[in-house]
Amino acid sequence: MTTASATIVARPGPSPVDRLYGLVQSDMAATDALIHERMGSPVNLIPELGRHLVDSGGKRLRPMLTLAAARMCGYAGSQHIKLAAAVEFIHTATLLHDDVVDTSTLRRGKIAANILWGNKPSILVGDFLFSRAFQLMVEAGNLAVLDILANASAIIAEGEVMQLKSANNLSITESHYLDVVRAKTAALFAASTEAAGAVALAERARMSALREYGHNLGVAFQLVDDALDYSGRQAQMGKSVGDDFREGKVTLPVILAFARADTEAQGFWRRVIEDGVQHEGDLDRAIAYVERTGAIRDTQVRARHYAAEAIHALGSFPPSEVREVLNEVAQFCVGRVY
Amino acid sequence: MTTASATIVARPGPSPVDRLYGLVQSDMAATDALIHERMGSPVNLIPELGRHLVDSGGKRLRPMLTLAAARMCGYAGSQHIKLAAAVEFIHTATLLHDDVVDTSTLRRGKIAANILWGNKPSILVGDFLFSRAFQLMVEAGNLAVLDILANASAIIAEGEVMQLKSANNLSITESHYLDVVRAKTAALFAASTEAAGAVALAERARMSALREYGHNLGVAFQLVDDALDYSGRQAQMGKSVGDDFREGKVTLPVILAFARADTEAQGFWRRVIEDGVQHEGDLDRAIAYVERTGAIRDTQVRARHYAAEAIHALGSFPPSEVREVLNEVAQFCVGRVY
Repeated sequence: MTTASATIVARPGPSPVDRLYGLVQSDMAATDALIHERMGSPVNLIPELGRHLVDSGGKRLRPMLTLAAARMCGYAGSQHIKLAAAVEFIHTATLLHDDVVDTSTLRRGKIAANILWGNKPSILVGDFLFSRAFQLMVEAGNLAVLDILANASAIIAEGEVMQLKSANNLSITESHYLDVVRAKTAALFAASTEAAGAVALAERARMSALREYGHNLGVAFQLVDDALDYSGRQAQMGKSVGDDFREGKVTLPVILAFARADTEAQGFWRRVIEDGVQHEGDLDRAIAYVERTGAIRDTQVRARHYAAEAIHALGSFPPSEVREVLNEVAQFCVGRVY
Repeated sequence: MTTASATIVARPGPSPVDRLYGLVQSDMAATDALIHERMGSPVNLIPELGRHLVDSGGKRLRPMLTLAAARMCGYAGSQHIKLAAAVEFIHTATLLHDDVVDTSTLRRGKIAANILWGNKPSILVGDFLFSRAFQLMVEAGNLAVLDILANASAIIAEGEVMQLKSANNLSITESHYLDVVRAKTAALFAASTEAAGAVALAERARMSALREYGHNLGVAFQLVDDALDYSGRQAQMGKSVGDDFREGKVTLPVILAFARADTEAQGFWRRVIEDGVQHEGDLDRAIAYVERTGAIRDTQVRARHYAAEAIHALGSFPPSEVREVLNEVAQFCVGRVY
């Protein structure tokens, strides 16, 4: 699985993500300005490469969650802007390193930075953005925020290392897969919302609720992302599918489909995933298998469970427009499979 | 140039680095214990790879400088242990990423982690150690320390990106080279000593002096390291030389030798550095050129200048055994060329 990118399927009318954007629009503009300012460096290659990724149409879901969570806590200051920019920098740094690790060729529909500039700048600019994130958090001057983000960063790296085991390995269990998702994806979602509570000096129970929301939303988000990579509907719509398949990554759709496979299908999965031998038509066959065995449906069922947990966590906040939109974002996120 | 490793040429009797170690021995033992504890992770590959590098006989010069600087400031607490461990983690993380970027095969005389485990774990474990460094600094609970280390990390990454330009490029100027050295090596030395002052709540002038000491020592250290890579004497002693040469890196010995080269020697440098075409005997010829043109001697003259600046900076501290040893370390560091 690639780290969940914030690609949201377009629908008629404003989606919940659009509504979320509308709610935090001016804060988000300030965040974007700060992101561009702090990507600056006298070493030209850094902003050049950074801008390539940052301006390539990612939806900035994580910083939007930070801004919305701070508002839901009634925060009236401006430190959440720095936090939101820091969260996006950490996300961008992990994408840069991910693409080197995965030898990806595309990111957000553009040629990946590691292909355009080579692996070396991608690694080093990732390190730079990661450092910039910590500089921003130091400026925000809140040790609790730094604690949350430093912990999340360590957990993300652990998740990425764990994930190396999942490549070409059909003995990966659902439990291992979920551990990876919790670490490499959900940890940053959780930090994005919890740290907003810390900036707002929210009480402990509120911070836990924000963390629960972010964590469960992150798991749901990654599950859906992994399902979409095998979506025939996505393929029909001209969206990119099959990235995980080509890289031999063992995601939940594959784990479930393999567990339910007959002898012939088992042989297929071993060849394409374990041996990495793939021919034309194999992706279509894989999609047919994951759909026929109910692996996609069941991945979505699990995603809905986590989305429901996310929504439940926000129940401790009083009703508000922000809370409503955050709930809708969780529902929307799992509705994007088919 | 490879990032300066803390390899010190053995001499009869205790060297100043040994004396430095003797001064901070019990703090260093606590730092080592903390380093091993915090390298821990349920993801086995992380401590495995981390230990490979950390236990491979690096001299821990940077954390020793941190511990000594804290003592020189009269610090009596225990937070400097966390800072020293954080400094070593940042150094180790940069080595891991460096070796991937340089496609190195050896590090501290052992097979490099990127060769043993592949690039992917090296990148990700580097990220993990970097995060661990920030976790330790958050625990130390001092925002000034975090500020210093976050700034240093960003500058190191900038230096590494700048250095990419120096490969195979004989038009690199001495000034560009020095900018790279200041960023990729001296910034962490400076942070190692300055942050110790911050932990000790030293007054501003003292912190500046510590920063000057570390910065100038770092520049001197890297200059000598780059000279040693072309040292015929080192080669005679069975030490590894020629790493920078083989990678086509343009360090000060090459910059000076090329500027002073006759037409034949210029052609040689263009072939081996710019075109990367190297034959047997070329390293010996390069060593002969850098020695004959005085490039090694002049690199050492510059290193002595920076060592003198380092020693000068400590003049604002009252005389003490620690100050004396730190001065000797600076002298010793530039004495190791021939």
